[in-house]
Amino acid sequence: MKFLIARRNLNDLTERQIEREEIFRGKVLHTVRDKVLLPNGEEAYREICLHVGAVCIIPLLDDGRVIMERQYRYAHGRVFFEIPAGKLDSPDEDPLSAAMRELREETGAVAGKMTYLGAVDTTPALMNERIHMYLAEDLTFGERELDEDEFLNVELCDPAELYDMVMRGEICDAKTQIAILKLAAIRPFDTRSKGVK
Amino acid sequence: MKFLIARRNLNDLTERQIEREEIFRGKVLHTVRDKVLLPNGEEAYREICLHVGAVCIIPLLDDGRVIMERQYRYAHGRVFFEIPAGKLDSPDEDPLSAAMRELREETGAVAGKMTYLGAVDTTPALMNERIHMYLAEDLTFGERELDEDEFLNVELCDPAELYDMVMRGEICDAKTQIAILKLAAIRPFDTRSKGVK
Repeated sequence: MKFLIARRNLNDLTERQIEREEIFRGKVLHTVRDKVLLPNGEEAYREICLHVGAVCIIPLLDDGRVIMERQYRYAHGRVFFEIPAGKLDSPDEDPLSAAMRELREETGAVAGKMTYLGAVDTTPALMNERIHMYLAEDLTFGERELDEDEFLNVELCDPAELYDMVMRGEICDAKTQIAILKLAAIRPFDTRSKGVK
Repeated sequence: MKFLIARRNLNDLTERQIEREEIFRGKVLHTVRDKVLLPNGEEAYREICLHVGAVCIIPLLDDGRVIMERQYRYAHGRVFFEIPAGKLDSPDEDPLSAAMRELREETGAVAGKMTYLGAVDTTPALMNERIHMYLAEDLTFGERELDEDEFLNVELCDPAELYDMVMRGEICDAKTQIAILKLAAIRPFDTRSKGVK
């Protein structure tokens, strides 16, 4: 079977841009349709959204709890349960600075320690969005400063309970699933017990 | 701090559609801009992409290896290392049937056993894409049947090595990170050792 698979593999999978059609440049979405040259020499169209990049933060309190948010996600028509996150202000913004800013604006928390947990490419077939993920610790608290059209509720949660929710399929947001599963690996908690006092 | 957070929370976070502007209806992207009523009574615009839904599959061989793919993702301009995945043929298609179909088309594998691992909402701020995730086992093999403009290479990989790659930030695709981290939880393998014979 190894052979059956290998003999179908290509050396170069690259698709090369031939031309670009601008479709829509909105406040958050930038949609283009590119004509591309496929590996077999044929032409095809690729419809994609270009994104500035984003950050997300899993904020861990000294008592072991995690700060979570409930936010209405209009595209899905329902409230999501997720970790703090936000877009970069510009493609050049340092992701760590953006993560510190978003954490403070959305939760009021200032982190004494930030640990990089890697990047998340959310939907590579359609969009170049990349979310840089951080674990925030040694937290102190001030006031939140939400954007004018941003409404979200903040909750303190037991990470073992969050882990169970991810495994049961009750937390569906991609970045939040990854953050909680990675947190369970690097700051082990008892994934079968409920309740931090 | 509990109080400080709670007194800022809203009872109803819902954003209500006032009107919809069709921006672009392409082959894969459907972009709209909606005017919405915010929880505070103000109006705002939400630019979103509507998506038919998708499936992804982590195929586990009897010898413990996982079938992975390398596929050029034009939006990112590079080859991604990811699990098999694909769009639903229609919003009504049963995700399990779609997962069986995509697995067969992309890898030639037919699964005797499929276990649902939950849904992944990839990028809730911008798109309603939801990927249903399955673990495929008891695999037998036939021929691949790729779409005309689809090019991808298939590899057999050690799950412990994949897990290490996720934790080191070397696998960035969201669905693939979640699939491997969940696989490690439900079909435990030694996450510190390398190499299945």
